[in-house]
Amino acid sequence: MEDNCFVLHGSVVFSRSKEELEEYKEAYLVCEDGLCAGVYEELPDRYKDFPVEDFWDNLIIPGLVDLHVHAPQYNYRGTGMDMELIDWLNKVTFPEEVKFRDRLYAERSYDMFVEDLYEGATTRAAVFATADVPSTVKLMDLLEDSGLVSFVGKVNMDRNVPDYYCETTQQSLEATKKWLHRIRGRYVNTFPILTPRFTPTCTDALMSGLAEIAEKENLPVQSHLSENPREIAWVKELEKDTEFYGQAYDKFGLFGGKHPAIMAHCVYSGEAETALMKKNGVFIAHCPASNTNLASGIAPVRRYLDMGMKVALGSDVAGGTETSVFKAMKDAVECSKLRWRLQDQSLAPLKLPEAFYMGTEAGGSFFGKVGSFKKGYEFDAVVLDDSNLQSMKEFTPAERLERLVYLSDDRNVVGKYVRGWKLY
Amino acid sequence: MEDNCFVLHGSVVFSRSKEELEEYKEAYLVCEDGLCAGVYEELPDRYKDFPVEDFWDNLIIPGLVDLHVHAPQYNYRGTGMDMELIDWLNKVTFPEEVKFRDRLYAERSYDMFVEDLYEGATTRAAVFATADVPSTVKLMDLLEDSGLVSFVGKVNMDRNVPDYYCETTQQSLEATKKWLHRIRGRYVNTFPILTPRFTPTCTDALMSGLAEIAEKENLPVQSHLSENPREIAWVKELEKDTEFYGQAYDKFGLFGGKHPAIMAHCVYSGEAETALMKKNGVFIAHCPASNTNLASGIAPVRRYLDMGMKVALGSDVAGGTETSVFKAMKDAVECSKLRWRLQDQSLAPLKLPEAFYMGTEAGGSFFGKVGSFKKGYEFDAVVLDDSNLQSMKEFTPAERLERLVYLSDDRNVVGKYVRGWKLY
Repeated sequence: MEDNCFVLHGSVVFSRSKEELEEYKEAYLVCEDGLCAGVYEELPDRYKDFPVEDFWDNLIIPGLVDLHVHAPQYNYRGTGMDMELIDWLNKVTFPEEVKFRDRLYAERSYDMFVEDLYEGATTRAAVFATADVPSTVKLMDLLEDSGLVSFVGKVNMDRNVPDYYCETTQQSLEATKKWLHRIRGRYVNTFPILTPRFTPTCTDALMSGLAEIAEKENLPVQSHLSENPREIAWVKELEKDTEFYGQAYDKFGLFGGKHPAIMAHCVYSGEAETALMKKNGVFIAHCPASNTNLASGIAPVRRYLDMGMKVALGSDVAGGTETSVFKAMKDAVECSKLRWRLQDQSLAPLKLPEAFYMGTEAGGSFFGKVGSFKKGYEFDAVVLDDSNLQSMKEFTPAERLERLVYLSDDRNVVGKYVRGWKLY
Repeated sequence: MEDNCFVLHGSVVFSRSKEELEEYKEAYLVCEDGLCAGVYEELPDRYKDFPVEDFWDNLIIPGLVDLHVHAPQYNYRGTGMDMELIDWLNKVTFPEEVKFRDRLYAERSYDMFVEDLYEGATTRAAVFATADVPSTVKLMDLLEDSGLVSFVGKVNMDRNVPDYYCETTQQSLEATKKWLHRIRGRYVNTFPILTPRFTPTCTDALMSGLAEIAEKENLPVQSHLSENPREIAWVKELEKDTEFYGQAYDKFGLFGGKHPAIMAHCVYSGEAETALMKKNGVFIAHCPASNTNLASGIAPVRRYLDMGMKVALGSDVAGGTETSVFKAMKDAVECSKLRWRLQDQSLAPLKLPEAFYMGTEAGGSFFGKVGSFKKGYEFDAVVLDDSNLQSMKEFTPAERLERLVYLSDDRNVVGKYVRGWKLY
C-alpha cells in the first residue's frame, strides 16, 4: 500500500456548496493515493487496512488557499499603515524589496515567511517575489522544501519605479527567461507564474514580451487590478487606448482565457471589466485587510459571487498584516457588512460559509481539484485543536469552525497534510 | 522602602499627547509608592536604592483600558456573527445571560473571562455582568483576586426582554440595592457602576429609581447609546418626550455631569447629542469590532477627538470577538479608514498614536490619573516581548508598538503591573 493511503479520524467540516457547510462530528476522512476518498461516519470495509490517525474530536478542514501574498513584504508587516497605495509603494515597499538582491538577507527573510506559512493553516499560495532572480529561486527552493504547493512569480516592472529598483524592458524579459531556465524540472510542488507588478509599472513592450513567454512556456499570470482610485486614474492616463484597466492586460492575452490569471483586489471593477473577467474565467483575489489598511475601499464580493465568478481570498501581506487566510475570511465577512451598511444595501453581507468557500475550494480551483473533501480532490487537510478557546458552551463542528476563523492563531494548527503527504 | 517602589528597565512607549508617542530605547521607568515617577535614560541617584527589574529591550507600555465589555458574553465570542443587534440580543445574548443564575456555570464562565483579561495587556476595565446578583458578586470577587482594576455593573432591565430573563421595576431596583449592600467594603480594586442595559429595556420608572441610587451612593453609570439605526428608531418610538436618544438618560441625570458616565458606541450621535455629551463629560466607548460584526456602522471618532471629547475604546465582547484592546486600536484605525473612503472624506482616518491614546490615557482617565507614564500617574505597566514577530528589519520602539498592535496576542505579554503591584 502507498504511503499516502490513510484515514484521519476527527470532526470534519468543508464546503458542500458556495453557501453551505457540510459537517461531521467524529468521522473518518479517507486519503487514497493522495486523493480524498470521502468522509464516513463508519469506516467502510474496503479501507479497514488503511492506517488510522486518531485526532479525537479535533476539527479537520481542507487546507486554506492564499491567492495573493508578497513574500518580501513579510519583513515589514504591521508597520507603515498610515499611507495610501502609491505613497506606500514608494516609501515602504520598493526600498525593502530591493534589499533582496543581498542573498543572505533574502534567504533569511524568505525563511521566516515560509516558516510562517508552514505553521499556519495555509497549504497553497500564489506568491509575489521581487524582481531579483537568484532570491526568487531561493524562495521557490524554500517553499518546495516546506511541502506546501505554490505558484511563485519573479516580479516584472520597467517604468514608474525608482531607479535603484527599476529594470529596463530588456533586462526584465531576459531575467524572466533566465529564471524560467534555472527552475526547469527543479520542483514537484512549486510552479512559476508570470508577474507583471501592475499596469503603472509595466510598459506595453514589457507586457508584449511577457505574453510571448506565456505563450511559449504555457504559464499563468498574476497581477493587481482596480485597487485604488488614484491608481485607476493613473492607469487611465497611461493607457489611453483602453476603456478600462483590465484591457491593459487583456490586449496582450494576459487576462485569463488561455492563460489562467489571478487579479488581486478588483475593488472598483465596472460592468465591462467584470463581464470580461467572467468571460475569461479570471480569478479575483479579494484582499479585504489590504484594501482596508491602504484605505482603498471594499470590493463588491457579493456581486461577483452572485455572477458565479471565481472569487477567492488573498492575505496580501504586507498590505494585509497577517498570512492567515482565516483572518482573510473574517475580514471578508466584516468588510461586506460595512459595505452593505455604508455603501450599498443591495449587496447583502457575506456569511461565514461563503467566506470559507472562498478561502478553500474557490482559491483551490486555481490549483486543480483542491480545497474540498469531496471525492477525487487532492488531499490537503489541516487539523485544528480548539481546546484553548475556552467556553462553557457546546458547539457544533460548524460553530467551532466559526470560532476558529474569528479567534485562532498558529497555536491551533496541530496537523497538516498536502497532496496526501503529512507535513506534521 | 515600600514594596511598590522599583524600577523597570526596557524600551518605553506611551502617549505624549493625543497625537504623539513618546518613545525611549532602553530606559528606566520608575515606580514610587505605586505612582509613576518618570522615565529616564540614566537612572537618577535618588532611585539608586530601588530594585531594578531588567527586561532588556522588551517594550514597556501603560496597561490597556477596556471601557466596554460584557463578561457573560465571553462564552459565545466568535459565534452567531450573522445577525444585527436586536435579533442577536434575542437569539443569542439573553438565552446565554440567563444561565448565569446557575452559580457553577457562572463561576466557571467568569473564571475563563477573568483569566483571559489577566493574560492579555488589559489592566483596567468597565464590565457588564448580568441581571443576576450572586453571580455578579462572584465576578467581582474573581476580578479583585486577579489584581486588575475594574468597574462592574449588575445589569438592569424591566421591559422588552423575554419573560424568562426580564425583571420587574421593583425587582430590578431591590436587587441593585441588595447587590450594593453585599459588596460594601469588600474590595480594593473593584467598584460598582450602575448599568441600565439600554433605553429600550429600561422604563422611566426604573431609570428614575436608578437615579436615586446613583445620588445616594454616588455611583457612575454605564450604558449603550445610538448604536444601530433600528435601535434608534425604536427609542424614538418609546421615548416620545425626548428629542434624541441621550436625553432618555439625561432626563434622570444618568448622562454624565455629576455621575460620570460611559456610553458605548455613539455611532449615530447627532449634533445635539454630541454637544450634550461634551458638556457633561460623557465617556464614549468606541467599539469598532462590535459595530462591524453587528453591521451597525462606524462612529465618527475623528469628530469626537477634534471636539476634545472623551473617547476611549471598548472590546465589547461578544459583539467584538476578542478582549484585546490592541485589537480595538487596530480596528479603530481600520474602520476610520473605511469610513473616510466610503462615507465622509471630511473626517481623516485615525493614526495609530491616536488609537493608542484612546486605549490607554483616554480610557484610563475614567479611573483617575491612569494610562500614562507621566509623573504622578498610577503605575499600570505591561511588558511585551516581541521577539516571536520575526523580521530582518530593525524597528524603533514606536514601530515595535505598531507591530504589536497589529500582530500580537497574549503570548507577547510577559509582565504586568497594576497600581504599582506586580501581577506577573
